[in-house]
Amino acid sequence: MADPLRVWAPRARQVDLQLADERLSMRPAGGGWFEAPGPLAAGTDYRFRLDRAEPLPDPRSPWQPEGPQGPSRTLDHAAFPWSDGRWPGLRLADAVIYELHVGTFSPTGTFAGVVGGIDHLLQLGVTAVELMPVNEFSGRRNWGYDGVDLYAPHHAYGGPDGLKALVDALHGRGLAAILDVVYNHLGPIGNYLDRYGPYFTDRYRTPWGSAVNLDGPDSDEVRAFFIDNALMWLRDYHLDGVRLDAVHAIVDTSATHFLEELRARVAALEREDGRRRVVIAESDLNDPRLVREASIGGFGLDAQWSDDFHHALHALLTGERTGYYQDFGRLEDLARAFRQGYVFDGRYSAFRRRRHGRSPAGLPASCFCGYLQNHDQVGNRADGSRISSLIGADRVKIGAALVLTAPFIPVLFMGEEWGASTPFPFFTDHQDPEVAKAARRGRLAELASGGWDPAAAPDPQDPATFARARLRWEELDLPPHSEVLRWYRALIHLRHRIPALRDGRFDQVEVRYDEDAGWLTLRRGPVFLACNLGDREHRLQAPSGTMVLACGGAEVESGRLVLPPDALALFA
Amino acid sequence: MADPLRVWAPRARQVDLQLADERLSMRPAGGGWFEAPGPLAAGTDYRFRLDRAEPLPDPRSPWQPEGPQGPSRTLDHAAFPWSDGRWPGLRLADAVIYELHVGTFSPTGTFAGVVGGIDHLLQLGVTAVELMPVNEFSGRRNWGYDGVDLYAPHHAYGGPDGLKALVDALHGRGLAAILDVVYNHLGPIGNYLDRYGPYFTDRYRTPWGSAVNLDGPDSDEVRAFFIDNALMWLRDYHLDGVRLDAVHAIVDTSATHFLEELRARVAALEREDGRRRVVIAESDLNDPRLVREASIGGFGLDAQWSDDFHHALHALLTGERTGYYQDFGRLEDLARAFRQGYVFDGRYSAFRRRRHGRSPAGLPASCFCGYLQNHDQVGNRADGSRISSLIGADRVKIGAALVLTAPFIPVLFMGEEWGASTPFPFFTDHQDPEVAKAARRGRLAELASGGWDPAAAPDPQDPATFARARLRWEELDLPPHSEVLRWYRALIHLRHRIPALRDGRFDQVEVRYDEDAGWLTLRRGPVFLACNLGDREHRLQAPSGTMVLACGGAEVESGRLVLPPDALALFA
Repeated sequence: MADPLRVWAPRARQVDLQLADERLSMRPAGGGWFEAPGPLAAGTDYRFRLDRAEPLPDPRSPWQPEGPQGPSRTLDHAAFPWSDGRWPGLRLADAVIYELHVGTFSPTGTFAGVVGGIDHLLQLGVTAVELMPVNEFSGRRNWGYDGVDLYAPHHAYGGPDGLKALVDALHGRGLAAILDVVYNHLGPIGNYLDRYGPYFTDRYRTPWGSAVNLDGPDSDEVRAFFIDNALMWLRDYHLDGVRLDAVHAIVDTSATHFLEELRARVAALEREDGRRRVVIAESDLNDPRLVREASIGGFGLDAQWSDDFHHALHALLTGERTGYYQDFGRLEDLARAFRQGYVFDGRYSAFRRRRHGRSPAGLPASCFCGYLQNHDQVGNRADGSRISSLIGADRVKIGAALVLTAPFIPVLFMGEEWGASTPFPFFTDHQDPEVAKAARRGRLAELASGGWDPAAAPDPQDPATFARARLRWEELDLPPHSEVLRWYRALIHLRHRIPALRDGRFDQVEVRYDEDAGWLTLRRGPVFLACNLGDREHRLQAPSGTMVLACGGAEVESGRLVLPPDALALFA
Repeated sequence: MADPLRVWAPRARQVDLQLADERLSMRPAGGGWFEAPGPLAAGTDYRFRLDRAEPLPDPRSPWQPEGPQGPSRTLDHAAFPWSDGRWPGLRLADAVIYELHVGTFSPTGTFAGVVGGIDHLLQLGVTAVELMPVNEFSGRRNWGYDGVDLYAPHHAYGGPDGLKALVDALHGRGLAAILDVVYNHLGPIGNYLDRYGPYFTDRYRTPWGSAVNLDGPDSDEVRAFFIDNALMWLRDYHLDGVRLDAVHAIVDTSATHFLEELRARVAALEREDGRRRVVIAESDLNDPRLVREASIGGFGLDAQWSDDFHHALHALLTGERTGYYQDFGRLEDLARAFRQGYVFDGRYSAFRRRRHGRSPAGLPASCFCGYLQNHDQVGNRADGSRISSLIGADRVKIGAALVLTAPFIPVLFMGEEWGASTPFPFFTDHQDPEVAKAARRGRLAELASGGWDPAAAPDPQDPATFARARLRWEELDLPPHSEVLRWYRALIHLRHRIPALRDGRFDQVEVRYDEDAGWLTLRRGPVFLACNLGDREHRLQAPSGTMVLACGGAEVESGRLVLPPDALALFA
């Protein structure tokens, strides 16, 4: 038996429940909440009318079958026939995460399309899928960070049942599912939250619009709105974790930070149902507080993305120094990332024009996610080009090897594993020409400030821009893609086979390098990796063990390991 | 030998040093700094010209002999003949702090005038003077929170030498000196900082104007500007501590918060010169992080003002429920403050319309300052009336006794000790009619939002408003003031005599009360206090010890302590 609909509308004097052919008066239920007179059958379309104004979708709508502007539809979460009762849960320390965008991963661009890729993911060896945001957004094409209707999986992706079927299928095949959620702002179209209550504040600004009101008057219910959202995904959709977008834009001066409260509530859910969950942050703060335990003043999050590691690696591999890459480019930076996660631990950043970060001393490496690319690092380039289109195949292989032998939790971005030829440019389908224009303008300004040439950026609104981003699965078995894929598979399977590669202790990482010569070696237990990013051959004493992977012409010659430029050898 | 003048002006291409009859070109010294060609003699007037615009005072001007709009003047801090070499420093745990406003404390309204009050302070028994902000402000009359020229003691108060002479005199008589500093915004007139560099940001808002840029581009030098300011007061003016105004309006999302960095730099100074300092925060956050040690994620501040304790006490004594007092009024609130400092430890606040604060478990009571009144609690009432004009003398005595036997660091507001008849209304002397008008408008709106009747507020710009605030020392020896003064002296001397009253451990505080009957008892070691805030007589078993203080007709009758309404008895 479903509960009656409830909605928080603290400014409204009257709230009506608008059905297809009926309007019901909702009764005030205290604290700004209004409650419908009785439950509705699952699958009923409805809207709310505040003080006789135009009917609006439910802020907590579980389903928007016609998109953000259409009616909300009731949903009975308990009705889904889950089959994942034996799913043991995600073990983050052992994870290899695969980030994907539902709309471009498969030919259909749906949740069901992702199910079709599970065989590939299993062969690749990843253990968790991380979905870019799937909640409703305006139009048919969007990365997902301009979303609204935070509780409603996008109707064109397959809606609530499609997402549940995907998670169930992943679990059934032994894969975990993590969802990217955006709690720092809402998209520009279909966001009716401010009609309902003080969800936003002008006390703080975000680069993308009004900041969320997490510490002003009536903020308890705003915090609950976002926290309940995370709990819904983890409970009703069986997701194994959430990845929080850009937490540096979540400003909260409360004594208990929103992120700490969120993690504590997730912990309570874990205790309640006995299943592990992870909360991972994308953070531009280099602040260890995020992942420290609450008992020592931390927020207790499980991990954070390490852009420092990415930037150090990317700048070395590509030689790029534009935008934030100007702070990187030395082997020393990469070594520092291997040794402590952050490159910026309080040092001056020329890009930021200030000191940045603080010492992460005491943090394990397993609370950082490492990647050679992700949707941002690919997509926030003017043309959305992947690293495989910027550098030679051997350098890509070196990058992949360093990510997959690093002490961090590796994250791959869909298609990376075969050096996909498809770019991942920024695309939108805003259903309002003014918003589309403003978004394009903002995009170009952002590119310019990041050091990119805005002229190289395709039109985000052009359907062709989206179409180009769609993965071409037919590449998979063709050279050179098939060769790249073999490399990734080998590395991932090595990581699973050798526990030392999943050892999350920084003090077990041995890294050596020669800045001028350009070589770097990494030892992790029985594994030894040597690579040459310089422009001259490098020779060193051959390590013990078997050379299990090599590229760029690396070979052992009478007890010496010979590394031509762009060569790598991995011994185990 | 003085160093050449330096100024940070990262946006300027050219900076000139403008002297009375000479203009010298300053040379770029890196990082946006410019340096004069050579040192100037102490006492030389100067200004800086950025890119040939109008000459401006030095942001770090040590002396503005003609106020914020006039020239800056060089100063040799080493030239002052200090005589406080044997000053042992402030021991906060034993302190009784006396907050005063230089302009209205004495007939002259100067630093020298404060020196004239030292005998009184010593007889009273306080151990530290806390000066409301003394840096330059526009006009002759200001509380000090609209200040500019953060490095320059107000010329009309007596300038740098006047302040040094005051601190030296205080130390010579065994009194510590704490200075109130405002790092959350600057005043509206004479603030040229934004001409020099990005001192401010629009990423955050404060109620009083632009927020300080503590985490954006070029913020390192902005942070240094404020931190160096605190260090200057503590080093060059021999101050024993700073009280940081409204730190809740200091927004900083850096991995190392400004306040943590500030306290760490003060600690370095303490190590350097072997003298203790204190950093006390006014905070509206109820966040234990402020005073926790840095090793467990805190900022390491020494203490914070406890508005919760004040509000609980004030609401009980006066029966007021307007504005923030609506959250208080029960003995339970006061007892909670006695037991843990915060009343709001995560509970819902009707005034704030959200949950507020978090558990202070583990914090000692000695990191809270307690007070019956302070400049804000008096002055932010429409008419600036002291509590002694709101309630009867016995209730005032009860309030004073609870503050001075509490486990917190007691703070008195000047004149409180004799129930001064003078109010302390908000006053200004803005030298710009537009600013004056805007300030008055803002003031009235603030009063209205706080539940006060704006019509009761005198004109802040009217010199008579200021004049009314000036203490009338002639009251001191007249009843009923002399009687109040005796009460305060007795309580303070008791506090000094009995170590248990200075015991900063919450678990050594025993508090009992009957909400309905209105009585409350407090035991602290050998001291027992009982008071009756109800409207009926209360009798309890007489405690052991001698009744050393009593008011309101409290007496012991055949083994029973009889407490009429508004009576208090203190046994030791």
